Amino acid sequence: MRRLINELSKLPSIGERSATRLAYHLISSGGGSAKSLAEAIQAAVDQTRLCEVCFFFSEKERCDICSDPYRESRMLCVVEKPADVFALERSGSFRGVYHVLHGVWSPLRGVRPEQTKVRELLSRIRPNGHGYIENDPIASGIDELILATSTTIDGEATALYIARELEGSGIKISRIGQGLPKGGELEFADELTLAMSLQGRRSV
Amino acid sequence: MRRLINELSKLPSIGERSATRLAYHLISSGGGSAKSLAEAIQAAVDQTRLCEVCFFFSEKERCDICSDPYRESRMLCVVEKPADVFALERSGSFRGVYHVLHGVWSPLRGVRPEQTKVRELLSRIRPNGHGYIENDPIASGIDELILATSTTIDGEATALYIARELEGSGIKISRIGQGLPKGGELEFADELTLAMSLQGRRSV
Repeated sequence: MRRLINELSKLPSIGERSATRLAYHLISSGGGSAKSLAEAIQAAVDQTRLCEVCFFFSEKERCDICSDPYRESRMLCVVEKPADVFALERSGSFRGVYHVLHGVWSPLRGVRPEQTKVRELLSRIRPNGHGYIENDPIASGIDELILATSTTIDGEATALYIARELEGSGIKISRIGQGLPKGGELEFADELTLAMSLQGRRSV
Repeated sequence: MRRLINELSKLPSIGERSATRLAYHLISSGGGSAKSLAEAIQAAVDQTRLCEVCFFFSEKERCDICSDPYRESRMLCVVEKPADVFALERSGSFRGVYHVLHGVWSPLRGVRPEQTKVRELLSRIRPNGHGYIENDPIASGIDELILATSTTIDGEATALYIARELEGSGIKISRIGQGLPKGGELEFADELTLAMSLQGRRSV
């Protein structure tokens, strides 16, 4: 029981109190639901790996997004972590494919670009020093690379690093729009966000 | 004392507890600081009016921004309230002039465009049905109108209303950039903000 509470309280946003309540619930529900939860966790861990193309979660070699022939595979969106793919998919506003970096370049925390999947991104785009792989339906050429890392210092540094590495590649490289979030009021926005929203203004 | 607490608790973000503490402080500090605060409030109310050009707070007929010859008067930024001017000035990212609407068009709350300073904005831009006032250093022609109302439904409706009214005027009309705020992570952004930040992506 102690060990279960301890393990549960390691989960994000679950403190010791919630962990205790969950543990009591699992044990008092007779063992059936506890057992199926344990099995589901085990199965998820066993069956989930990273997509060999984009490094998003997958149960096969290639994830559902990379295998989907209706996705625009010439439009590639670079994100930091799998949760960002979930967020963008939920928004329904992107029909291209992804590349998950599993980290960002962070000079302050001592993380180098090579510790992320940035090499894999670059070789996905220019595997032989060219801009394409022949006869590969997924990675055979990209029209636009959207750098959708966070708008934090590390996210910006990573976006800039990738943009520089691909300089002269002829690929259109863009950065996600920054500015006032939906429902935002100028009065409560920080200075940098206001500056970005003025810089990034668009013709009506 | 009761009346003072009552008046103080009408101020934004001051509850009855804070109001009581403030009232005790004002009274127990001997009367000197209380008197000078009362005078400062009175003087501010007496001396502050709205700028006759942009409707921002001013102590003269024209505010300091409209009177400043170093501001780019051909670039006009439309905001909802005086606090937005303070926010943009603090960000230091805008060198043009403003027009304060003192409200937004809100069909849901029954506020019509005419109840804001939108008519004044339109006649400032096209006083005789033309796009300029002759011999007026402040309002004689505008190159770009930046619609910086909030990104709420009412703010969007107001921006759209103004853009439509000025259709065919030849003035460049733009809307502030919307998307991920500075320091934002995709994982925690709402769907609409994500959609805006993808739509509003910019070439690197």
